[in-house]
Amino acid sequence: MNLKNDLLLRTARGEKVERPPVWLMRQAGRILPQYRALRAKLSGFKELVETPELAAEVTIQPIDELDVDAAIIFSDILVIPEAMGLTYEMVEKKGPFFPQTIKSREDIHKLISANDAAEQLQYVYRAIELTKKNLNGRVPLIGFAGAPWTIFSYMVEGSGSKTFSKAKRMLYAEPELSHQLLEKITETTILYLQRKVDAGVDLVQIFDSWAGILSPEQYRQFAVPYLTKICQSVTRVPVTVFGKGAWFALADFAAMDCQVIGLDWTISPEYGKKIIGAKKVVQGNLDPCLLYADNKMIERATLDVIQAFGDKHIVNLGHGVYPDTPLDSVKQMVATVKNYQYV
Amino acid sequence: MNLKNDLLLRTARGEKVERPPVWLMRQAGRILPQYRALRAKLSGFKELVETPELAAEVTIQPIDELDVDAAIIFSDILVIPEAMGLTYEMVEKKGPFFPQTIKSREDIHKLISANDAAEQLQYVYRAIELTKKNLNGRVPLIGFAGAPWTIFSYMVEGSGSKTFSKAKRMLYAEPELSHQLLEKITETTILYLQRKVDAGVDLVQIFDSWAGILSPEQYRQFAVPYLTKICQSVTRVPVTVFGKGAWFALADFAAMDCQVIGLDWTISPEYGKKIIGAKKVVQGNLDPCLLYADNKMIERATLDVIQAFGDKHIVNLGHGVYPDTPLDSVKQMVATVKNYQYV
Repeated sequence: MNLKNDLLLRTARGEKVERPPVWLMRQAGRILPQYRALRAKLSGFKELVETPELAAEVTIQPIDELDVDAAIIFSDILVIPEAMGLTYEMVEKKGPFFPQTIKSREDIHKLISANDAAEQLQYVYRAIELTKKNLNGRVPLIGFAGAPWTIFSYMVEGSGSKTFSKAKRMLYAEPELSHQLLEKITETTILYLQRKVDAGVDLVQIFDSWAGILSPEQYRQFAVPYLTKICQSVTRVPVTVFGKGAWFALADFAAMDCQVIGLDWTISPEYGKKIIGAKKVVQGNLDPCLLYADNKMIERATLDVIQAFGDKHIVNLGHGVYPDTPLDSVKQMVATVKNYQYV
Repeated sequence: MNLKNDLLLRTARGEKVERPPVWLMRQAGRILPQYRALRAKLSGFKELVETPELAAEVTIQPIDELDVDAAIIFSDILVIPEAMGLTYEMVEKKGPFFPQTIKSREDIHKLISANDAAEQLQYVYRAIELTKKNLNGRVPLIGFAGAPWTIFSYMVEGSGSKTFSKAKRMLYAEPELSHQLLEKITETTILYLQRKVDAGVDLVQIFDSWAGILSPEQYRQFAVPYLTKICQSVTRVPVTVFGKGAWFALADFAAMDCQVIGLDWTISPEYGKKIIGAKKVVQGNLDPCLLYADNKMIERATLDVIQAFGDKHIVNLGHGVYPDTPLDSVKQMVATVKNYQYV
């Protein structure tokens, strides 16, 4: 099906475009009243993730409400560890929790094979198919996965953490075992993303949410090779790599087979452009807290970021939008981008 | 009194030394059995902070047990907001909590004046005097304070936070009010640090624990000017500036009237040295999680960091030592440094 608005894809492919596209990480979520209304009727977060009709519905809500240039499938990066054999619970206000974690070689051997794990995630593929059908070509649909290091950190730590010291302890104490687990996660993620592309996603984004807690050396050793492999294996659609706190790895990202690099808000456009160069498109990087300011400041900061990055830029926040962000502020940001024209 | 071991001070002043000095952030704390034994007898963390005899005792414990080259006074950065009028509670396993926070201009006007606030912190000055006496010149004593932005973030947010969105909201929504509060914190901090120097500390470290959640532009606007002012006002002892996650501000730190710049472990020695140049001493930056590895790896990584920084270097972790770190691992790191000799 032809897309009515393919601005995101033309931009990701490096084509000359009329203005930057705009979407927000976590745009399908608590900022939207229609999301909160639906969510209140359900047993929990996972029911939403695992029911294709509901996932499709909330994926499309921000297209109706915010008029952004892309949809991103409502899901969670933790469906991968779950498909590999570690179920997770989403604890209200606390985040994810894994009753079982990876502690030993035996735990890794017991994990479900990459093929079987990817096969289990039918509800995701079905949600993508439904969303594509219901979007009816209005905007492209983004699929995503967690980066292997980030998935590893949850599988070993068992929950979110300020330090992820259990996960990092494994990297230091058992590097070989760590590579085994990272390899398994990578294989599964590749098959999963390929199935997502089969199901219809138009672009794929890899989230390395915990990149910033590793030293540059560990990141090069335990994260970069696996990201590189994933980028090489997803060939039919553009790929975005986004490492939160990964300022020290931008040159590594720039060397990968990806089209877009996501930047968090600690990276100035000047620094980002200098390290990444002109061969990649960049995505970002407004501070989510900017959206607590008044409309005038939001407009000015949005224009500033567009001008600072120049072309080859997808406007987004530097992190997921915070749940208590005023809807009008998001709309102000989106409208500012949509009214802009490159000269 | 003459110091028997003044290696830290000679290094901080940029003198040629025989080996780098070594100490650990949070060395006085839960890693030590003698600390845990004492703490178990007390009502809580604040009793320890506010009782000079006890604070002096735990400050000296790591000198006895770990043989490090410096003591750092046992205290908390939050004594400053408390002296300014906002009491805090230290909630076990959750961290600090402020029942009252700063929300308005009136709240700022109600704060206690810088002079009166600094005057209230007698228990800190007394703890320093006692520690100096009991240390008997064995090693230098470090005093510290939170950077104005970090103190601001607690005063507005009321607790730790993943995003500090209330604090950052104030920066965006009410920049003028924010500067007023930052100014008050700065004035108080300067008087407090000067009193600490009067009481006997040999070096002062400023901790900007939440530097990394600001954009480079906001950091330049709301943090750098106040840090600069503090550095200018503490003149009789060397000053260390440590901004966690502040990779984007290293050039700003290098331009301040400080002698030492602390680096977290996400900053490679190459990058740190390139940005900071040879005029400052650097402190850091081993990953706290390295201390979960075996002794051989700890030794190798410690030697690596010494060699990578070359001279003008104080060995430390890139963050406070984690409470569950094996004591033997800390000793391995310290012994490795103490056995090293610059060629």
